[in-house]
Amino acid sequence: MANVSKKVSWSSRDEDPAQGEGTPLLNGASAARYTRQFSGSGIFHIGRLSTVDLEEENVEEEGSILSRPKEIPHNEKLLSLKYESLDYDNSENQLFLEEERRMSYMGFRCLEISRWVVCGLIGFLTGLIACFIDIVVENLAGVKYHVVKQNIEKFTEVGGLSISLILWAVLNSAFVMVGSIIVAFFEPIAAGSGIPQIKCYLNGVKIPRVVRLKTLVVKVGGVICSVAGGLAVGKEGPMIHSGAVVAAGVSQGRSTSLKKDFKIFEYFRRDTEKRDFVSAGAAAGVSAAFGAPVGGVLFSLEEGASFWNQMLTWRIFFASMMSTFTLNFFLSIYHEKPGDLSSPGLINFGRFDSDSVEYNLYEIPLFICMGAIGGLLGALFNVLNYWLTIFRIRYIHRPCLQVMEAMLVAAVTATVSFAMIYFSNDCQPLGPDQSEEYPLQLFCADGEYNSMATAFFNTPERSVRSLFHNPPGTYNPLTLGVFTLSYFFLACWTYGLTVSAGVFIPSLLIGAAWGRLFGILLSAITSSGSIWADPGKYALIGAAAQLGGIVRMTLSLTVIMVEATGNVTYGLPIMLVLMTAKIVGDYFVGGLYDIHIKLQSVPFLDWEAPATSHSLTAREVMSSPVTCFNRIEKVGRIVDILSNTSTNHNGFPVVPRVNENNEPGRLCGLILRSQLIVLLKHKVFVERAHSRLKQRRLQLKDFRDAYPRFPPIQSIHVSQDERECMMDLTEFMNPTPYTVPQETSLPRVFKLFRALGLRHLVVIDSENRVVGLVTRKDLARYHLGRHGLEELQLAQT
Amino acid sequence: MANVSKKVSWSSRDEDPAQGEGTPLLNGASAARYTRQFSGSGIFHIGRLSTVDLEEENVEEEGSILSRPKEIPHNEKLLSLKYESLDYDNSENQLFLEEERRMSYMGFRCLEISRWVVCGLIGFLTGLIACFIDIVVENLAGVKYHVVKQNIEKFTEVGGLSISLILWAVLNSAFVMVGSIIVAFFEPIAAGSGIPQIKCYLNGVKIPRVVRLKTLVVKVGGVICSVAGGLAVGKEGPMIHSGAVVAAGVSQGRSTSLKKDFKIFEYFRRDTEKRDFVSAGAAAGVSAAFGAPVGGVLFSLEEGASFWNQMLTWRIFFASMMSTFTLNFFLSIYHEKPGDLSSPGLINFGRFDSDSVEYNLYEIPLFICMGAIGGLLGALFNVLNYWLTIFRIRYIHRPCLQVMEAMLVAAVTATVSFAMIYFSNDCQPLGPDQSEEYPLQLFCADGEYNSMATAFFNTPERSVRSLFHNPPGTYNPLTLGVFTLSYFFLACWTYGLTVSAGVFIPSLLIGAAWGRLFGILLSAITSSGSIWADPGKYALIGAAAQLGGIVRMTLSLTVIMVEATGNVTYGLPIMLVLMTAKIVGDYFVGGLYDIHIKLQSVPFLDWEAPATSHSLTAREVMSSPVTCFNRIEKVGRIVDILSNTSTNHNGFPVVPRVNENNEPGRLCGLILRSQLIVLLKHKVFVERAHSRLKQRRLQLKDFRDAYPRFPPIQSIHVSQDERECMMDLTEFMNPTPYTVPQETSLPRVFKLFRALGLRHLVVIDSENRVVGLVTRKDLARYHLGRHGLEELQLAQT
Repeated sequence: MANVSKKVSWSSRDEDPAQGEGTPLLNGASAARYTRQFSGSGIFHIGRLSTVDLEEENVEEEGSILSRPKEIPHNEKLLSLKYESLDYDNSENQLFLEEERRMSYMGFRCLEISRWVVCGLIGFLTGLIACFIDIVVENLAGVKYHVVKQNIEKFTEVGGLSISLILWAVLNSAFVMVGSIIVAFFEPIAAGSGIPQIKCYLNGVKIPRVVRLKTLVVKVGGVICSVAGGLAVGKEGPMIHSGAVVAAGVSQGRSTSLKKDFKIFEYFRRDTEKRDFVSAGAAAGVSAAFGAPVGGVLFSLEEGASFWNQMLTWRIFFASMMSTFTLNFFLSIYHEKPGDLSSPGLINFGRFDSDSVEYNLYEIPLFICMGAIGGLLGALFNVLNYWLTIFRIRYIHRPCLQVMEAMLVAAVTATVSFAMIYFSNDCQPLGPDQSEEYPLQLFCADGEYNSMATAFFNTPERSVRSLFHNPPGTYNPLTLGVFTLSYFFLACWTYGLTVSAGVFIPSLLIGAAWGRLFGILLSAITSSGSIWADPGKYALIGAAAQLGGIVRMTLSLTVIMVEATGNVTYGLPIMLVLMTAKIVGDYFVGGLYDIHIKLQSVPFLDWEAPATSHSLTAREVMSSPVTCFNRIEKVGRIVDILSNTSTNHNGFPVVPRVNENNEPGRLCGLILRSQLIVLLKHKVFVERAHSRLKQRRLQLKDFRDAYPRFPPIQSIHVSQDERECMMDLTEFMNPTPYTVPQETSLPRVFKLFRALGLRHLVVIDSENRVVGLVTRKDLARYHLGRHGLEELQLAQT
Repeated sequence: MANVSKKVSWSSRDEDPAQGEGTPLLNGASAARYTRQFSGSGIFHIGRLSTVDLEEENVEEEGSILSRPKEIPHNEKLLSLKYESLDYDNSENQLFLEEERRMSYMGFRCLEISRWVVCGLIGFLTGLIACFIDIVVENLAGVKYHVVKQNIEKFTEVGGLSISLILWAVLNSAFVMVGSIIVAFFEPIAAGSGIPQIKCYLNGVKIPRVVRLKTLVVKVGGVICSVAGGLAVGKEGPMIHSGAVVAAGVSQGRSTSLKKDFKIFEYFRRDTEKRDFVSAGAAAGVSAAFGAPVGGVLFSLEEGASFWNQMLTWRIFFASMMSTFTLNFFLSIYHEKPGDLSSPGLINFGRFDSDSVEYNLYEIPLFICMGAIGGLLGALFNVLNYWLTIFRIRYIHRPCLQVMEAMLVAAVTATVSFAMIYFSNDCQPLGPDQSEEYPLQLFCADGEYNSMATAFFNTPERSVRSLFHNPPGTYNPLTLGVFTLSYFFLACWTYGLTVSAGVFIPSLLIGAAWGRLFGILLSAITSSGSIWADPGKYALIGAAAQLGGIVRMTLSLTVIMVEATGNVTYGLPIMLVLMTAKIVGDYFVGGLYDIHIKLQSVPFLDWEAPATSHSLTAREVMSSPVTCFNRIEKVGRIVDILSNTSTNHNGFPVVPRVNENNEPGRLCGLILRSQLIVLLKHKVFVERAHSRLKQRRLQLKDFRDAYPRFPPIQSIHVSQDERECMMDLTEFMNPTPYTVPQETSLPRVFKLFRALGLRHLVVIDSENRVVGLVTRKDLARYHLGRHGLEELQLAQT
């Protein structure tokens, strides 16, 4: 059973980092100080496993590096109060209902049509962005490889290849430097693939600045630089984030950053609608990245949605289709084959011809075996990356250091690649239908090329394709083994750098390499029956296994892989492999994205409450006492409560009248901080209670205009006279918030909260009096650990 | 705005058909009488569109056919009170919570593992059933075609082909007679594809006997007979129903029909768990039918689920995989190619080789055009079938008549086929790689065969494949045109017969025929460019368009089609076509399944409340007054209330004490009729209130043993002495039912109700006193008609 302690504060903290500073941790570890700079670092802060360690760490740090801010890295057993929730439940106040009731049936039809239009636009723009990234990367990388290739060819003959190495390393570092600088200095949230952030967003956690235009620009620039810079990264993951940003932007019909309001889609300016569009955007991103529209829809569902809505799903599907179609269309024009729709995604696995690569029943155990290997290697990858991230947080937290690390990785990547190619003596004949774009002859005989170079001297996408499709015998086992090993560590080192980049392609590449190796060894053992002859098949299975072992998706990943290969024959083996990889991997450690989300102490809600949590009830889970407002409240009290930085509540039950003894009143509504702030800003006051002077009428538009960046309370000036005025909350509060009785079990509370995407759930007693409030962090605190139900500590960071 | 009238009764009616008889309609049309026999007919009863018509009709009928029961067919504007709801919200009473709290973490792990085991079993058994059906049908049809072919060959030479026709017609009728008799006389619910029934079940409506073993047996037998009997039907739709029955059976660990209890999986004996397994079963059915595991998962989601749960989805996926794999494996053994996994589904579209059939950008408008045609034809099909069904209900309601109609259709199908073949002079050369199993030479020259016969003298699955894959020139346009026309009407006539059969394959076949025709005409017009050369592509698109136009699925159907063709190249065009077909078709009339569900007056909940329903609040929607029980209630009162056939409530709010004035009390729990019945059956009484005599302890097991066939109240004898006893409901009631305040808007109520799969939602006032109860039919009544929000009338039928 969990140790349920009484909490001091019940609302999530404002995102203002200034407020967090110097405040003690609320539970346990009370002497610890900390600072927060997640949103300024882009990587996830991590703590050690126990609070004792955490304090030790603190002391140690204080001793060693006095000049920089004290840093207590996040602890996995902590739950940050820093994150606000999104409100996926409409506040159905009088204003809202009046608007809805005024609206005719045709009005709703128009809304529905504009939803489709927005989804189409999202798909179109996402496809365009993907197309842009693809073309720019291809050209930049083309120029780079061309230059380096010429240089290598020159120096292969005259000697002094070290100059080529330096040229290569410098070119790579230069690209990566640019990419890293814009991320580290301008928009740190754009680092990484963005998938964990989008997962959190769809889950209902507000991650600051995650869907802003600036983030998108930095993301696109960053991913181009890092891919062109030859890092072991892919450009696919960031597409998902890009799609989400596009969606959040387009659906609002304005850009707050550009201060441009098109006065359209105003109806969509609330969290509920925006979330739906962001799902569509994420799906469109996946769709453009892999040419997998159905996979995109499933990704959005698997990672985000909770309530399945058929119409919404169709819209998401439409956005996905538009996105892959747009990409395909513009790429076909770019490749001067207009109308030839053969590039549905950024990565194209190439065509697996059905007849050449059948699989047989007795191969299935082998596939399952490979799935297990993938799970193991994936777990290893995740654990290594976890340690690395801890190291990064401790020692590489300044932007300039981060840029330097990224440059170092770029240089090392180039060096390793060069060394591999240099020392490899795996020469292959240059076939007539040579698909290599940059075959390196190096020390091979004329008419031959270095096969290691096809893996290293290439964009990762092309390498994956070569591994899948090059005929048997293209690679020798040693090449593949060495390649797997080196690329594994490079990719692991690279993920988490302060650059925009995804982990999908490197995972696929690692998996394809060892998968192909597996296939080759297999055919060597079994005296090469014809069925084993094609190692490309094993490369595909290996790629799936490795990717599954790292990210732990199953359904959506199966569909993505199937759609990317263009062949459903492998559906069943891929499923089996992904399931096995997930089961094996989960035994050791969680998926990469989940690890990073957990390290961030994000109050992320799982699908279900922990199985053994029936012993807890709402009474134990809720925060109390609750600050309530009267239906007609004094402005001064409102300002005081909103300004109280030690509580910083975000939702307030409204009661007819708080009595003198501060006893709970009967619930009659719920009002949000953001609504109160808009009211204060517009000075919706009456001189005194029951005054005949009417309050100024506010419209829903005033709230929508302020959404989503409501000003902080500090920026609102309320004079002493105004403080004596009253505010009638009746028409602004949500009169029908969802409630639960105190005796409700945690799983039941959880189900309600999760299914409806709530932010506040009022706990009432048998007479409908407010006794507590359940918020996201109250539910996210409980999780199943190794010793049964565990409770995370709440931290103000 | 809707006209909200006060209702007399608030609970759904018991399924006992005797009770419905003779009761006046509650709203409007009060003089009308009716009888109900849906569950005994297997087809859907339909009424005319206005109540005036309905009464006229009544008079007319009374005049004409006095001998048979007066029949007022169902009206689309009625909502039947006959259907009970399923309870997809756990009743978290003390017994349940105690059990959950006793259970260790390992216990939950075991449960989770058994869920996976059950899903694996479901998949395995569903695959086996599919395999059985396939093999039996293949053999029976093989024998039939062989006999008829020999006969035709014999009489082609000597003349007197009419004898062959008679032989063919008699054989077909004989098969269909058997299939129809078992359905009509033994289990009428097994008629049709079962998809509407499963949709209703997953939506939360209890359809009597739909998941019983007997239904499965009849279904399997029926589908074999009707397919072997050469009807224009498929064996795919019924697989979905079969899978669902398997799931409902396996997951309960017992068979009530066979009176066999294996004492396993007792935990799963409630609606919530059972529903999850039934979803998996339906998915496994789709998966086996089309070899489309992902399509199966999406089908379950699109048609059924509301709350998306990741773990559940994975289990569903697993069941789907198992099912297609089992089918594949056993078929490979049957075909004596063990290990060759090339038959993943009952229907196999054959392999579309990627290179031969590319599509180009400028074909997309053509595809969209075809989608529109499909939508139109689909709408026509649905409208015709709708009228036909009305006719059937009026005049063909007795089992023997139904059998005769089925036999007539079989004979007509044979005759039409024969006539087509006979009068067709479309001879094609018999190629060396002839894929036809039964090529009919008829009047063709030696070495040639009649191409019309490939379409008619074949199982529909083979015909579809021929249309997709036979090389250009195999069919002449006239053949295809005539075939489309005749098969369209045959299929339309066939759907709704009292046989087990699906509409998927006939739809595909019609679509493939006109699609191929479209392709041929196109290439004729455009002076046969090479890109148009392949009519098989257009056959595929036409098939998708036609099927989409009839059933109106998009996402799942796209995936199913893609998986069945084994090629994702056509993903995009298929999506576009399905979307177009849906949009065009929806303009005229709903999907076939939805029409039939609506005609059934089933209280089916859509995804969202009607858009313009914000004007309604819980106060107007709810039923009141509510019959409440005291926490400690007199047995006599309970028995009286349960026995009251005029109300027949199913859920009762529990209040501490109902006061004398019958004023509403404070809500303290909710108890179900089924729970009370178990309590009464076990005589859980105390002599009087506050007695020291303890009530007999009941366990959760007692409730589970009675699930799902709780005895009717009439079968429970309570003596006069016992009537004076008291019953303490405290530990059996659900102490934390979900509630909403009276002012809650309908969409908000709807969202809560739908997302959590509720059966009863208590409406409370500001002091937590019970003022009303919202059930499924209160929400299902409101729908958007042509004139805005409409309200369906409630009918006791």
